[in-house]
Amino acid sequence: MTPLNLIETLIGIVGPSHVLTGDDADSYEQDWRRRGRGKALCVVRPGSTDQVARVVKACSEHGVAIVPQGGNTGLVGGSIPDGSGTQVLLSLRRMIAVRAIDPQNMTMTVEAGCVLQSLQEAADQAGFLLPLSLGAEGSCTIGGNLATNAGGTQVLRYGNARDLCLGLEVVTPQGDVWEGLSGLRKDNTGYDLRDLFVGSEGTLGVITSATLKLYPKPAAQLTAWAALASLEDANRLLGLAHRRAGASLTGFELMNRFSLELVDKHYPHLRVPMWREHAWCVLIEISDAESELHARGLLEQLLENAFEEGLVADAIVAENLKQVHDLWHIRESITLAQTEEGFNVKHDISVPVSRIPEFVRQADAALSAALPGVRFVTFGHLGDGNLHYNIQAPAGSDAPTFVTAHEAAISTLVYDLVSQHAGSISAEHGVGELKRHKLPQHKSAVALNLMRAIKSAIDPLNTMNPGRVLESST
Amino acid sequence: MTPLNLIETLIGIVGPSHVLTGDDADSYEQDWRRRGRGKALCVVRPGSTDQVARVVKACSEHGVAIVPQGGNTGLVGGSIPDGSGTQVLLSLRRMIAVRAIDPQNMTMTVEAGCVLQSLQEAADQAGFLLPLSLGAEGSCTIGGNLATNAGGTQVLRYGNARDLCLGLEVVTPQGDVWEGLSGLRKDNTGYDLRDLFVGSEGTLGVITSATLKLYPKPAAQLTAWAALASLEDANRLLGLAHRRAGASLTGFELMNRFSLELVDKHYPHLRVPMWREHAWCVLIEISDAESELHARGLLEQLLENAFEEGLVADAIVAENLKQVHDLWHIRESITLAQTEEGFNVKHDISVPVSRIPEFVRQADAALSAALPGVRFVTFGHLGDGNLHYNIQAPAGSDAPTFVTAHEAAISTLVYDLVSQHAGSISAEHGVGELKRHKLPQHKSAVALNLMRAIKSAIDPLNTMNPGRVLESST
Repeated sequence: MTPLNLIETLIGIVGPSHVLTGDDADSYEQDWRRRGRGKALCVVRPGSTDQVARVVKACSEHGVAIVPQGGNTGLVGGSIPDGSGTQVLLSLRRMIAVRAIDPQNMTMTVEAGCVLQSLQEAADQAGFLLPLSLGAEGSCTIGGNLATNAGGTQVLRYGNARDLCLGLEVVTPQGDVWEGLSGLRKDNTGYDLRDLFVGSEGTLGVITSATLKLYPKPAAQLTAWAALASLEDANRLLGLAHRRAGASLTGFELMNRFSLELVDKHYPHLRVPMWREHAWCVLIEISDAESELHARGLLEQLLENAFEEGLVADAIVAENLKQVHDLWHIRESITLAQTEEGFNVKHDISVPVSRIPEFVRQADAALSAALPGVRFVTFGHLGDGNLHYNIQAPAGSDAPTFVTAHEAAISTLVYDLVSQHAGSISAEHGVGELKRHKLPQHKSAVALNLMRAIKSAIDPLNTMNPGRVLESST
Repeated sequence: MTPLNLIETLIGIVGPSHVLTGDDADSYEQDWRRRGRGKALCVVRPGSTDQVARVVKACSEHGVAIVPQGGNTGLVGGSIPDGSGTQVLLSLRRMIAVRAIDPQNMTMTVEAGCVLQSLQEAADQAGFLLPLSLGAEGSCTIGGNLATNAGGTQVLRYGNARDLCLGLEVVTPQGDVWEGLSGLRKDNTGYDLRDLFVGSEGTLGVITSATLKLYPKPAAQLTAWAALASLEDANRLLGLAHRRAGASLTGFELMNRFSLELVDKHYPHLRVPMWREHAWCVLIEISDAESELHARGLLEQLLENAFEEGLVADAIVAENLKQVHDLWHIRESITLAQTEEGFNVKHDISVPVSRIPEFVRQADAALSAALPGVRFVTFGHLGDGNLHYNIQAPAGSDAPTFVTAHEAAISTLVYDLVSQHAGSISAEHGVGELKRHKLPQHKSAVALNLMRAIKSAIDPLNTMNPGRVLESST
């Protein structure tokens, strides 16, 4: 059969207006970070699980590869086709139904193309909290969130996307539908297929729907901002916050001085507090089941104890909801401020929380020795041991030239150190195209062999997002 | 090679005193529920991961099946050998080291043979809570807990064993060691091997060690006992408790009148409250980060609102720690009281919380119609949608005769209804030997095919606990 036959078949399944080629396919082929661009045979936009199944079956019969795509906001090039013009890009964005909300079971069942923010809003209107929250929430889709096991700012309390998922509906590489939309919190009837598909980045099947856990809405959320002298103090403060706040502790974000300097420089109206005088700042979030007053009492008591123990040099508790938002806005502006400052080298890494101080000290020292003057934009989710450890070119240097010349060496140094500290070279962004070449150096042969065995067993024709996560075997 | 060659090889690996045969093997071959007994070629008791790997490799080379065993407290016959005398029983009970406790990372890394209660105590001594808790905790091992994804009484807040596990060390069916002992809360570098091994009941490999999440110890735990007229009211009270207590709600146990009548009859000194006048009682547990006073205020306010809304007919809050323990003891005595009463038919099922009332009404009606006079021991973890829906013979009838005659029909009726309500026929006990024949009627062909593909890919010789979870293919 020819590619044209396949396109005709796909048009027969989803209708001519939902099979896109040429310029119409353009926006789907462009990587979010604008570091890559692919070329699809066509973009196909099914509107139902049945259509997805028929599309996948047709592609499988033609031996044609499929690249599933949600909001296309991934950061590792996992959701665009390669440059061959032979792969079918399967966009889930038309599948946007909230199929059910079950208040007594505290679950919602939604289709893969739903934009995360719209689901947060739907949960809110039903009186619940959907606690998955990340920068791209206005564009990313829940299918993509699950396929990449997205993280974000509330993992400390609620876990990753994986932890919020009770069940999945998945189209297998053969075009069968696995009806795993369980609303069950306990089900021990066999292997955990759900968690195998979650985080597999579209290489084992296409997630078409999911049942998600909902949580009670907190009565109040409040934040504090504290300045600290060292990462050791940040870790001690984190431990104190865990002990005092228990499950009310829903955020603990770390920012180094330079990351805040960049926000101050590029967005001076945000009025970043305390950054000039202190090496580190943290943003602490409390979600309180009781009241804002209770949350305030908790935060004030926590900070008072932290002062007494000499952990905190300066601190404020947000006065009102606007200030809560303003403080979060500063934290969330670091990435954009960094982009304003110019090209840089990004790392999304994790190590055990206890090893963060030593990791940062060693990485800073090694990079400063190798490349004098480099600047460290170190921030992230300290409570999860997850840092965005990013490197900005020395002041005054040409950033693009610097990045081109040194990116590979910088990342190798950082990732080697991550492995020495028993860490992960991709804490929340996944592997995709960008990091698959790195895996053999950072995962054991036993782990990779198990992954390859699973891939071959479930997708023997290697038509599902080939060459992502694992390199295509020859 | 002969079985004797293999035994010689095993003795060479673990030493003669740790390869048991004949009477010495007896206690390992007996099922916990005393419903079955197997016969092993031998029992081998390795003392290290390296020894486990060499034992597994030797068995694999001989094509001899391995049955891993922890505390042997499973309820589905998954940890005893078959009757052939050809299988090697691999006991993990000598591997009892707590390898590390990392307070800042809030993790502990432990060997598979550690008894759960000893780990709860080790966590407590380190200032933390290990929130896995179940009836068999004095005998069961963490390796078995993870291999079966154990549940228990605190799943409502902390999840199943799966949710408490950050990393695993596993010996593969080929005798390789997967070093996956991650202390990371975020790691998106490939397929979720951890969750594939968790709950696979020893059919994909042998768990030798695990890294577990620890939690801050609550400042206080307090319980209330409330009497209700209906399951609908119980569900509404559960929703109210979620909204009021948030993450402080750590237990919500349901008990019907007859289950409490049995406790009262067989253990009158336990002084079961409220059972005579009310159809249902619930036990509510609050774990408070602040104080007992705060927990008491929360529970009293919750119950006051519940009275106002007409959900609760009667209620008490425990006066002191002794009363907290006494109330839990009543709940935990139901299983033993049932045994005292005589043979019965047990079901460990789950449905979405919202469907519990309808499920129980339909199941009670259908069974009462089919077998007039049967008595329902209905209790369990309402917050997880998990009921132990057990059937006692009619009063005055001969229980063993009744069970023998009707067990199969009763279970078929119950499981069919569970499936109609999108539930699970094994919420927390697993599949093992007991329920594998049931899976094809209650899981889709697509799910079973995926499971079989994974099993064949990882254990192509089918030497790992063959015939458990999945039937051995021919």
